[in-house]
Amino acid sequence: MRIAVLGTGQVGRTLAGRCAQLGHDVVVGTRDPRQTMARTDTDAMGTPPYAQWQAEHPDVALATNAEAGAGADLVVNATNGSVSQAALTDAGVGARDGLVVLDVANVLEFGAGPLPGIGATTEGSLGERLQAAFPAARMVKALNTMNCAVMVDPARVPGDHVVFVAGDDAEAKAVVQDLLGEFGWGSERIVDLGGIVGARATEMYIPLWLSLMGALGTPEFNIALAR
Amino acid sequence: MRIAVLGTGQVGRTLAGRCAQLGHDVVVGTRDPRQTMARTDTDAMGTPPYAQWQAEHPDVALATNAEAGAGADLVVNATNGSVSQAALTDAGVGARDGLVVLDVANVLEFGAGPLPGIGATTEGSLGERLQAAFPAARMVKALNTMNCAVMVDPARVPGDHVVFVAGDDAEAKAVVQDLLGEFGWGSERIVDLGGIVGARATEMYIPLWLSLMGALGTPEFNIALAR
Repeated sequence: MRIAVLGTGQVGRTLAGRCAQLGHDVVVGTRDPRQTMARTDTDAMGTPPYAQWQAEHPDVALATNAEAGAGADLVVNATNGSVSQAALTDAGVGARDGLVVLDVANVLEFGAGPLPGIGATTEGSLGERLQAAFPAARMVKALNTMNCAVMVDPARVPGDHVVFVAGDDAEAKAVVQDLLGEFGWGSERIVDLGGIVGARATEMYIPLWLSLMGALGTPEFNIALAR
Repeated sequence: MRIAVLGTGQVGRTLAGRCAQLGHDVVVGTRDPRQTMARTDTDAMGTPPYAQWQAEHPDVALATNAEAGAGADLVVNATNGSVSQAALTDAGVGARDGLVVLDVANVLEFGAGPLPGIGATTEGSLGERLQAAFPAARMVKALNTMNCAVMVDPARVPGDHVVFVAGDDAEAKAVVQDLLGEFGWGSERIVDLGGIVGARATEMYIPLWLSLMGALGTPEFNIALAR
């Protein structure tokens, strides 16, 4: 598949590198590639400059969001949720009828409180807002409930922990489930929460995820279902 | 222990019955015991009338919230979150310095949408509001992330699934952890999320719990931590 990964942070890099490793044709999209490559500082999350990662991944191309989105079979939204709609607009998602978009993003608005704002309530979520903003696209929410290293390599964490998918289009969900399978998610570990409205549930889990990261002292964990 | 369980619904009954079975002195509190005993209809959740359960549990007393709360070593809040503050007020929680309150409640405001309102955001939660309303009491949030049958008998669900506790007072948390141990929760399955602010995280997990109940077709499940 031709995959456009929007976002040059740790999540975007990890997904792009893994998809390329699996043999996909991967382009990372950013607002201004020259500016992205010119940065030399480690960011607020401790992520080293993009150019360093790019040099180690010659099989991944860097382009504008528009160039990355053009001709992509699958767009992966790995931007911070607060800028996702702008990035998807730039990537031309609105103009591509039936385009499958894998939305792994969360809104994380860090402020003075103990938890960041997450932009999700029992009445709405980022995944739904993106689906509403791009009605011709087929949005699938998945992978947003775990650290990016676990997203692309579930075997890093032992046990039958799970990944959730939510989306209105069954065919689009099947495309995403196939990619999850390539990452290492056996079908019995992919839990279908139904329509994109299910994004409310997974986005509202983030405060528990953040609390657990604090309690466990590591981001490399996930939840399993006991039944 | 003398335990006051506030709430006569399925959650209150299950907790009261189990605590009595364990040898505790249990009083169930309600607004109007005569009215509670007079009801003959099955409620909206399919719960049979209280009097039927009471007849099968002669070891549990029914009293007003005030009578139940008086002299209790531990108050368990098993009311619907939207009436919890009134019930705790009636139970005299505000007047008992250092009283330990185990808050297992969630706000569930069912309306037209696919999910009920939950009264918790990244900026506040029921557990915190109750702690703020009764500053002399020691609030511990726990057990609100699962079905009541699983709360009191974790072995009903196989696997090392977990229970979360959150509260500002370490001694109060130890009282609750001991009771959880009596229910069958081994200490390695009790995850301490820190202060009562952790109630935000567990209350905001409810939409995922409800979605999973739909996806799994049963309320008898829980989450385990893979790490």
